[in-house]
Amino acid sequence: MERIRTVEVSTHIGERVRVAGWLHSLRRLGGISFLVIRDGWGILQAVAETEVELGPLQDGSIGLESIVAVEGVVVSETQAPGGVELHHLHIEVITPVTEVPPVPLNKRQIAASIGTLLDHAAISNRHPARRAILRLAAGAMAGFRSTLTSRNFTEIQTPKLVAAATESGANVFKLDYFGRPAFLAQSPQFYKQIMVGVFERVFEVGPVFRAEPHDTTRHINEYVSLDAEFGFIENHFTVMALLREVIAGILTTLHEEYSAELKLLHLQMPAVPQEIPHIFFADAQELIFRRYSTDVRGEPDLSPQDERWLGEWAQKEFGSDFLFVTGYPMRKRPFYTHPDTERPEYSNSFDLLFRGTELVTGGQRLHLYSDYIAALEKAHLPIEPFESYLEAFRYGMPPHGGFAIGLERLLMQLTGVPNIRLTTTFPRDLARLTP
Amino acid sequence: MERIRTVEVSTHIGERVRVAGWLHSLRRLGGISFLVIRDGWGILQAVAETEVELGPLQDGSIGLESIVAVEGVVVSETQAPGGVELHHLHIEVITPVTEVPPVPLNKRQIAASIGTLLDHAAISNRHPARRAILRLAAGAMAGFRSTLTSRNFTEIQTPKLVAAATESGANVFKLDYFGRPAFLAQSPQFYKQIMVGVFERVFEVGPVFRAEPHDTTRHINEYVSLDAEFGFIENHFTVMALLREVIAGILTTLHEEYSAELKLLHLQMPAVPQEIPHIFFADAQELIFRRYSTDVRGEPDLSPQDERWLGEWAQKEFGSDFLFVTGYPMRKRPFYTHPDTERPEYSNSFDLLFRGTELVTGGQRLHLYSDYIAALEKAHLPIEPFESYLEAFRYGMPPHGGFAIGLERLLMQLTGVPNIRLTTTFPRDLARLTP
Repeated sequence: MERIRTVEVSTHIGERVRVAGWLHSLRRLGGISFLVIRDGWGILQAVAETEVELGPLQDGSIGLESIVAVEGVVVSETQAPGGVELHHLHIEVITPVTEVPPVPLNKRQIAASIGTLLDHAAISNRHPARRAILRLAAGAMAGFRSTLTSRNFTEIQTPKLVAAATESGANVFKLDYFGRPAFLAQSPQFYKQIMVGVFERVFEVGPVFRAEPHDTTRHINEYVSLDAEFGFIENHFTVMALLREVIAGILTTLHEEYSAELKLLHLQMPAVPQEIPHIFFADAQELIFRRYSTDVRGEPDLSPQDERWLGEWAQKEFGSDFLFVTGYPMRKRPFYTHPDTERPEYSNSFDLLFRGTELVTGGQRLHLYSDYIAALEKAHLPIEPFESYLEAFRYGMPPHGGFAIGLERLLMQLTGVPNIRLTTTFPRDLARLTP
Repeated sequence: MERIRTVEVSTHIGERVRVAGWLHSLRRLGGISFLVIRDGWGILQAVAETEVELGPLQDGSIGLESIVAVEGVVVSETQAPGGVELHHLHIEVITPVTEVPPVPLNKRQIAASIGTLLDHAAISNRHPARRAILRLAAGAMAGFRSTLTSRNFTEIQTPKLVAAATESGANVFKLDYFGRPAFLAQSPQFYKQIMVGVFERVFEVGPVFRAEPHDTTRHINEYVSLDAEFGFIENHFTVMALLREVIAGILTTLHEEYSAELKLLHLQMPAVPQEIPHIFFADAQELIFRRYSTDVRGEPDLSPQDERWLGEWAQKEFGSDFLFVTGYPMRKRPFYTHPDTERPEYSNSFDLLFRGTELVTGGQRLHLYSDYIAALEKAHLPIEPFESYLEAFRYGMPPHGGFAIGLERLLMQLTGVPNIRLTTTFPRDLARLTP
């Protein structure tokens, strides 16, 4: 008999079906036994009304997480998870397991420290709640890609082994490349800009590496960056308008295609306003001064507290979980940032705040070769390591800009997990290089 | 006026439109001038019938690759590329370029050595023929993903920084990870297998790193691997059936959605037979002996010449560009390879040959913990570095298998370019770490 997936069983009421998966739980209550099978997509209860029906599970030697195949008749049962269960079972064991898993997988909450959980990620990632979060990552990537491909963006893959650090010499992993020093790319920034000269509209989904020696709940040293960059923009507001579409596209994908995962996690995706409100950096500082009696005017950046206040204000004023802050001071932004032409100490850049925390950074980039030469000089950076990057601007680049969304940061904020390590399959941090 | 893309112009005959892009070429023939605008998707000819119409291009100071916007009336003209051209022009210069590009971009063939071409990849990637090949990479990734997501596969992203080399200690890039040694992943093999325990069906598109000191036309040291892995298979034939669907899906995507690129490159995508023919390894050696009078029987692997002969045979015998060779000897395959249960010196693995060259490798993996312990022992490998990988098998894994397609290798074979470096934006090889 052809196996079907657990999530398909409810459309076969009255029929005999075959499912296969992991033995998720087994309770024996007198003569009756309840077993739960977990496959890659869901769980299904099966009820053995006699000992004989348990077949190879009778003697108790077949432990949880064994791979089993179960045939049975589909019966509607409101008490059962998913509203159906299997009766009149025939059970086969495909892979027997005898040891007890290092973390219990069949409790609603995982009763293990985060350390244990991550040490045994190969197993703990199987927990339905863990798995649901990890699967949302797939949905976020899919929503990102579909929003952009439908707008004629081309997907690129750029090198992660680079000869020069992207933005600064600090916080990069260094390695030996056939006798020469090489670095792991901190971002595809330079390459995605160069590729605007080829395809005009590009995006990339790939790993980036940051050798930051930070041990916080919000930092990991390898993460997935969702990068977009495109040409022929007016200014950073064109970029913000695209980002609004991308965020809405991701949330719609999750809402529509990952509803089982969201339901399991008791999550609802936030609404994205047709137009996300925005506030100019200096005006935001002025607002904080007036509203919260704290004078941060003249500071070159917003503190986490400032961002929380602004998030609160956006919620009260516009009923929006999202807020753009525009025009961060040039001195805190990387050398390729385009200045505000009317107020050149401010930049055509932005941060997107979600519920008072920075979610995405982006902006307009310089596009004139002469501006790059001047900017590098001003930043006291040598020209030589940037020569092939600069070549793109030397031979014609349109006004352009883009943004980068940290996939794990996005998932952390959407799911509300307390630690970014919980949003990814096998996190890399100061202490953790395995599994 | 809203800008439209060059590839959209032909649907606006008789209307006045605005396009923008790079000044691809400019020929002045007496009073008449022909200019070609290149945007991210195509090219468009515009004709200035007077000097005045040339506007800012009149005095010759605005060079090729300048960014320009051109408004004009769309006129049908069979001689023009794409069958339309613009008349009655209004031209604006957005970014002027004065220097001559390092490689000419407006000739049908690029007249530059491969070295020059790669040194100036930031510019040479703009050439329509180069760009078409690079865009096919996006199509191949899209076809790979859509084929698998429609079959309930989940996309994963696994770490590229790892504590132990994947398959052997050789040919890995080593780096310092906060005072500890780390390596760049040679493949997501272990992680994709572990994730079969979570999602059952997984795929990944991402970079892999090989520190092989080979300087050939077929090797690069960082490439994009299209990986798939899935559980509850019968044996390697289940994997081969999926691979057939994936290859067909990629080719259909390219054929249907990238026809402009294929036309420009004068390429047709090969047909994939409903069932790709297959031959058992030892039978293939026997066939070579009988047909080509060369005795390779007993050799542990096929040589490139053997593969060419088999490709020729598959073409003659089945009219197929594709051929599976199954059952490679265990001693040449990695330790996690599942043996042929009836002939244990042979494996449940395969190579897919395309026109006589290896395109994809895959197979069934071991799934029993005890088999892994025995296999590591037999390979004289320690258990300790593999412990978290082995944990997946210790706690229940179904029969599973998968494959990996090298994106650049695939493109090289589909496009027929003579060097794999030409299939990727910014190749990494022994000598090349930049651009």
